[in-house]
Amino acid sequence: MSDLQLRPDGGLRHFLTLEGLPRALLESLLDRAQALRDEAFSGVALRNRLLGQTVCNLFFEPSTRTRSSFQLAAARLGADVLNFDAASASTKKGETDLDTLKTLRAMGVDAFVIRHAQDGAVDALADRAGGAALINAGDGRRAHPTQGLLDMLTLRQRKGADFSRLRVLMVGDILHSRVARSDLHALRTLGAGEIRVCGPDALLPGDDVLHGCVRVPRLDEAVEGVDAVFMLRLQRERMVEGLVPSLDDYFRDYGLDPARLRRAAPGAVVLHPGPINRGVEIADAVADGAQSVILDQVANGVAARMAVLEALLEPSHHLQPTFPVARRA
Amino acid sequence: MSDLQLRPDGGLRHFLTLEGLPRALLESLLDRAQALRDEAFSGVALRNRLLGQTVCNLFFEPSTRTRSSFQLAAARLGADVLNFDAASASTKKGETDLDTLKTLRAMGVDAFVIRHAQDGAVDALADRAGGAALINAGDGRRAHPTQGLLDMLTLRQRKGADFSRLRVLMVGDILHSRVARSDLHALRTLGAGEIRVCGPDALLPGDDVLHGCVRVPRLDEAVEGVDAVFMLRLQRERMVEGLVPSLDDYFRDYGLDPARLRRAAPGAVVLHPGPINRGVEIADAVADGAQSVILDQVANGVAARMAVLEALLEPSHHLQPTFPVARRA
Amino acid sequence: MSDLQLRPDGGLRHFLTLEGLPRALLESLLDRAQALRDEAFSGVALRNRLLGQTVCNLFFEPSTRTRSSFQLAAARLGADVLNFDAASASTKKGETDLDTLKTLRAMGVDAFVIRHAQDGAVDALADRAGGAALINAGDGRRAHPTQGLLDMLTLRQRKGADFSRLRVLMVGDILHSRVARSDLHALRTLGAGEIRVCGPDALLPGDDVLHGCVRVPRLDEAVEGVDAVFMLRLQRERMVEGLVPSLDDYFRDYGLDPARLRRAAPGAVVLHPGPINRGVEIADAVADGAQSVILDQVANGVAARMAVLEALLEPSHHLQPTFPVARRA
Repeated sequence: MSDLQLRPDGGLRHFLTLEGLPRALLESLLDRAQALRDEAFSGVALRNRLLGQTVCNLFFEPSTRTRSSFQLAAARLGADVLNFDAASASTKKGETDLDTLKTLRAMGVDAFVIRHAQDGAVDALADRAGGAALINAGDGRRAHPTQGLLDMLTLRQRKGADFSRLRVLMVGDILHSRVARSDLHALRTLGAGEIRVCGPDALLPGDDVLHGCVRVPRLDEAVEGVDAVFMLRLQRERMVEGLVPSLDDYFRDYGLDPARLRRAAPGAVVLHPGPINRGVEIADAVADGAQSVILDQVANGVAARMAVLEALLEPSHHLQPTFPVARRA
Repeated sequence: MSDLQLRPDGGLRHFLTLEGLPRALLESLLDRAQALRDEAFSGVALRNRLLGQTVCNLFFEPSTRTRSSFQLAAARLGADVLNFDAASASTKKGETDLDTLKTLRAMGVDAFVIRHAQDGAVDALADRAGGAALINAGDGRRAHPTQGLLDMLTLRQRKGADFSRLRVLMVGDILHSRVARSDLHALRTLGAGEIRVCGPDALLPGDDVLHGCVRVPRLDEAVEGVDAVFMLRLQRERMVEGLVPSLDDYFRDYGLDPARLRRAAPGAVVLHPGPINRGVEIADAVADGAQSVILDQVANGVAARMAVLEALLEPSHHLQPTFPVARRA
Repeated sequence: MSDLQLRPDGGLRHFLTLEGLPRALLESLLDRAQALRDEAFSGVALRNRLLGQTVCNLFFEPSTRTRSSFQLAAARLGADVLNFDAASASTKKGETDLDTLKTLRAMGVDAFVIRHAQDGAVDALADRAGGAALINAGDGRRAHPTQGLLDMLTLRQRKGADFSRLRVLMVGDILHSRVARSDLHALRTLGAGEIRVCGPDALLPGDDVLHGCVRVPRLDEAVEGVDAVFMLRLQRERMVEGLVPSLDDYFRDYGLDPARLRRAAPGAVVLHPGPINRGVEIADAVADGAQSVILDQVANGVAARMAVLEALLEPSHHLQPTFPVARRA
């Protein structure tokens, strides 16, 4: 839990991790994201919200996909977006991360979306952000809270808001995954009925991460009767590192194919944070099948990020809608 | 011809190639581009058209110039623009092109501007685009239809709409050129009176591409009496590949200089898709001369792309102009 | 002095250098930047100014920081911004700088913000810009006039508009610095009382640059009683080139630490163009101390660039504010 992210009044100051985020706050974000879900994709009714505010995508580690999602979320709320690639050598010039942040803050950036390769790097910046709001878009293996938020939103849309009745399974490289950690934080907070994990021993973390989870070694057993399967991406470098024997072996042991998915509960859904490795962790027929909610996750990602930006930047809810509201016919 | 690009009602669903595009549709796009030509460069009267819509420049092959033209075209119609560099390694991560497209579509992208190194790659995506409109911004050697459109717009501005009276000449590396193919498609559809081609044998394609064209080996003869010369860019790698002996030799045999241009009809115009190689395919005095319409092509490019975006995205023509119309004094 | 940058009526046509810029014009830009200073960072009252105009960041040499400052300045005035990375190989394709500029001008760019590695490169483009306004964002060692402007703005905020009473000191690698040259141009025009310079002999230029300045070899003496210290960034390659023995030696001789700063006049301010090299040219305690105005400089940079853009693009001052003015509560 990060005490850095809450204001004295309980509101969000930063959005750094889902660990320890109060359940009421998490659920209100989910509610707001759901409300934004349709509006986000049509018309310009929301263009007034953050008009005149500036959101900076400050990426110390490259990620075009997540950056694009945040860029669209901010633009649809009317904010100006500045993409700042802090990973390139010409940008760094020996400057500290904090100096980069402070410089951009001085240019008038109101919120920073930060990705960083090191665990805790975003927290380290949060208490010296000079009044700017920070959103953790992934730091090392530690957290990726907007991904956790969008995953819960997706699950709730399909399975309802009472998580206590749900059995969920997480499969794959949990050890290196910030997505897994943020999902686990949220699933626990929302009171998921049962959380199973399955993956090669070399890719499973200790009980500091997996406390309360049920380890099931064989995927065929693990998937039995679950309502949702959270698949994780296998980075190809895991094979180079010797943590996985071969991609074929991995798929045989831990890949989700239609036969295995049939063991899950009827109507079980399959999530994946993307980009997917077809034939490595997931079969085409599953990725593209009726139970896949992978593209829902992507769409929900924009709405979830809009909800977070809105919560942090205190949009002018009370303002009259002065921006022209032109909807498509 | 691609059946993929037309709706049952004859309207545009995608814009993939000029080959087989009905003449009436091609001419209506030219008419609209002409109408947009002045509006595009002043004031904000058009900012209402695509407000709330998102256009993604999805470039699997880099091209800053074409991307910039599309970016400005979309912005001047009020759309949000997302530039997605799909060529960089960090972006790909082993994801298929279709998964990249579907992911961005799920984020709410309404139209994709796609460049790709492979022939037919954009068509292959078109029937699985999930309702998004696709614009081919150049695929392999196959087609670059907005370039063809802007070239025809430029020619029409100078020589009138009756192409049957025109003799045109295309010079250079037609074999590798998608621009040449799209120009040929359009010139045939618009009924050009005579199409001559001239270039090194090694850089001329077969009759599948050049049917109906007159091959004239020597440029001095080829240029005789023509109303328009379409110069093509010589990629410097053609020399490395041994298809061209040297750049000096190329200029001597196929470069357009003032002496050669004087053999053309009075008032003949010179087109080039840019960027130009001065002293390789075109002399400075021609590129910068009174008969050059190269910068007109660039300006028309923005208008042509606006016309295509508008045709695909069904702008809200019927809406009241709710966006403030502030014109410069 | 560049005659290129003034119109016959004395207004700005381009913004290329501060050398020879009339004092009244320089002061009016400072006044306007000051007025924009607060508005620039809140609300959207200024969004009408350059609505419908296009500003292109045309960078032949990369600089994410300066580009971001200009991007935000243009966006806050309502302009469309096109970032064009002219440094990358795929962009150049053998095209001349002028052809690149003309191509973008033909797309409807109204103003270009240009950075270039070569001295005078922006001036060379200025008289062939086809009606577009050019802003020099740094050319070689020659000039970086918006940095000079923002430095003067910062100094004036702290020390008042009468520069004749001020003693200022410039420390470090003046030889390679366009920032230093633009600061010197402005300080002379504004009538600074005394300008001292201090740095290794190998990093100090001749009297063509330093005329009227007092050279003080030892920093302890140079800093005595000054009202402002302009620190310059030491490029690490100066060590590789043998111009500086080591970074430690450099800091010992020319680094600004609290002890040295105490020798300055009470309330003296410390400026640095950033990014700072902590422990090389400046100590942490100075960079982060109460006398540092480094982040003020960054904030003023956005306002100064807004003032310049506005002066060049003749914003529609007389227009009614048709854009909705929604301010944050």
